[in-house]
Amino acid sequence: MTDALPTELMGRDGMQVRLRRAVAADVPGLVRLLADDAISSGRESDDLAPYQAAFARIDGDPGQLLVVGELEEALVCTLQLTVIPGLARAGALRGQVEAVRVRSDLRSQGIGEAMMRWAADALRARGCAVAQLTTDKRRLGAHRFYARLGWVASHEGFKIQL
Amino acid sequence: MTDALPTELMGRDGMQVRLRRAVAADVPGLVRLLADDAISSGRESDDLAPYQAAFARIDGDPGQLLVVGELEEALVCTLQLTVIPGLARAGALRGQVEAVRVRSDLRSQGIGEAMMRWAADALRARGCAVAQLTTDKRRLGAHRFYARLGWVASHEGFKIQL
Repeated sequence: MTDALPTELMGRDGMQVRLRRAVAADVPGLVRLLADDAISSGRESDDLAPYQAAFARIDGDPGQLLVVGELEEALVCTLQLTVIPGLARAGALRGQVEAVRVRSDLRSQGIGEAMMRWAADALRARGCAVAQLTTDKRRLGAHRFYARLGWVASHEGFKIQL
Repeated sequence: MTDALPTELMGRDGMQVRLRRAVAADVPGLVRLLADDAISSGRESDDLAPYQAAFARIDGDPGQLLVVGELEEALVCTLQLTVIPGLARAGALRGQVEAVRVRSDLRSQGIGEAMMRWAADALRARGCAVAQLTTDKRRLGAHRFYARLGWVASHEGFKIQL
């Protein structure tokens, strides 16, 4: 996915976060961001090699856009967008948001909100008619957050380990 | 996505459904299958042109596999698989299942179960560590169905119209 990135996001107190497409050198910082989370930290590994391989696959897939946000040269937020073509809804494109993270010490300062509003705009600009995400049922704060931004918890999210 | 399709699925009473990759000529039958549903019928259109364009986009995307099932030369079921590369879970591939349908007069006869077991196997064979889907909160029968097959309703599924 190509983009009009970089983009400036405005958090509260005039905090400016610069969004850009992730590059391979971001992988260590991205892994720290993914692990900086009570629910998902146990899923991540200290070995960076599988992440570097995964980054190359994301970066080479035109349906994916992995985004990072920088504040004073540190990675402070990330999310991944996926555009999924489908037949349903008269052949609508579906935009999916995965792996949303804001550095734990910077939460509740408007960064996530600005990033999610940017994500909806970015998916709309790519022709998506609907966007979707799933969030763990234990993340009650995240549910309130998405609802406040106009997202509707209309679906059950089922997973299975393979 | 390339495949070892076609595959025979066995429903109850020895009913044999042949799964294969969808082709452009399946689009009219696929649209009928998508509309053969109480919740999503109102979303579909009589004009086939946007579906044909969407089919071409799905078919040309190596991350997608749109599958149809035939019984005595009629389309009786469908689903779409998407492989999403990501960094989380040590760079795991995520398999997504969308647009699951079984023709209304053939439900509860084991076709959907066989198709969903095939889907999990197909995603595992492509290296996916986890599979996911969302289903409307009103589809209580579907929730029981997926739970019976080992899927876990661990997540809230949020959507937003763009």
